[in-house]
Amino acid sequence: MSEQTPTAPRPTAAMLVVGDEILSGRTRDANMHHLANRLTEAGIDLAEVRVVRDDPDAIVAALRALSEAWDTVFTSGGIGPTHDDITADAVGAAFGAAVDVRDDARALLAAHYAPRGIELNEARLRMARIPEGATLIDNPVSAAPGFTIRNVHVMAGVPKIFAAMVESVIPTLTGGAPLLSDSIRVHRGEGDVAGPLGEVVAAHPDCRFGSYPFADRDGSFGANVVVRGTDRAALDRAVAALRDAFGADAG
Amino acid sequence: MSEQTPTAPRPTAAMLVVGDEILSGRTRDANMHHLANRLTEAGIDLAEVRVVRDDPDAIVAALRALSEAWDTVFTSGGIGPTHDDITADAVGAAFGAAVDVRDDARALLAAHYAPRGIELNEARLRMARIPEGATLIDNPVSAAPGFTIRNVHVMAGVPKIFAAMVESVIPTLTGGAPLLSDSIRVHRGEGDVAGPLGEVVAAHPDCRFGSYPFADRDGSFGANVVVRGTDRAALDRAVAALRDAFGADAG
Repeated sequence: MSEQTPTAPRPTAAMLVVGDEILSGRTRDANMHHLANRLTEAGIDLAEVRVVRDDPDAIVAALRALSEAWDTVFTSGGIGPTHDDITADAVGAAFGAAVDVRDDARALLAAHYAPRGIELNEARLRMARIPEGATLIDNPVSAAPGFTIRNVHVMAGVPKIFAAMVESVIPTLTGGAPLLSDSIRVHRGEGDVAGPLGEVVAAHPDCRFGSYPFADRDGSFGANVVVRGTDRAALDRAVAALRDAFGADAG
Repeated sequence: MSEQTPTAPRPTAAMLVVGDEILSGRTRDANMHHLANRLTEAGIDLAEVRVVRDDPDAIVAALRALSEAWDTVFTSGGIGPTHDDITADAVGAAFGAAVDVRDDARALLAAHYAPRGIELNEARLRMARIPEGATLIDNPVSAAPGFTIRNVHVMAGVPKIFAAMVESVIPTLTGGAPLLSDSIRVHRGEGDVAGPLGEVVAAHPDCRFGSYPFADRDGSFGANVVVRGTDRAALDRAVAALRDAFGADAG
């Protein structure tokens, strides 16, 4: 049995993806789906995602809105060495923090590049530009750190670096009760699922329900009905009620 | 030669994805990437994307903000027959339009279900709930229509239906000059790309540049430098300048 009641508020998070390459369709974002799964496992609700252009004003406005509305914000993209990497400066502008090359970040880069015979030139030093007061997020892949300021975690867009940084940050967050889920496959058109499902939903306010239609290549169709909640017993009751409601059509 | 100057403003669009299943990580969104590509081909800039929960207040607030900020808004998800399909009502609430079962939408559903021997029950009739004043968007897959109200196109979340609705809507939009792009592969660390790239960027204000690092399994690494613009000649000049700047490292 959980110590927390099913109605205990779960911490919330938001994500801000910075990148013209996502919005133009050139790159398919992979970080949102990864973060969504990792937060769900950690008992944190991803409540909103925004994708904005490589535009300082757009980044600043979204950062302020998300940072105010939700417990934690993760950003993805725009912290590399090139001219279009403007996220650090936008974060500084959003929170009134000065941004400059910081010694601790420069030392990380120097330690990474020196043994490889790579010059720590002006462009690479941009990756040591960190807002005043921020703490660094470890980058085990390529050294250039992310950083945390207030409730915002600023991370790289390259998926394997993003994923590594997520693993550094998640243990520092206070998760709620992990969200449990279960699903049944109903072999019935979604329009015939809706009525009985509505009655189950009304009778189980301690769970959340979703219905997602499927149509398989073999011609079978129906809806996956998903139940989510933080209390195992409540979830089991809801699933049993769904099986009752759909009888032989519940797979 | 294009009739439009490179600086002619291009129409803008935004996307609102409605869905707990995306935010929980259960489903990986496919519609954003599809829409991004189709809009780019049509000469329209996708400027912002938001993903929000199945929550009326969140949908209403995002709709109003996006509808005001950008020329056109596409929504994805939440127009099926079940209790969690609340997008039509939220759109009505956002724009002060009454929402009820409409005869034209009901007729489409009846014509689809009757020959299949499927009952047009109360749940399925929810899919004929359309805000007053909206025009319908054809759904060639499963009949239940999307709709357009003001500058907002409300579409299904199921990817093949979403894609079909996008094809219905795009010809009705006035695209700008199609965005052209070209890219070169630079076999040089991104930190060594940034300096020369910055000079090319400054010298070609009629184009936009992006730099996207790559690391292949064979150990080769570098950056894909992408140039975008609406003027072919300007784009060619920029690419030539990049080839000059990176010499033998430009693949």
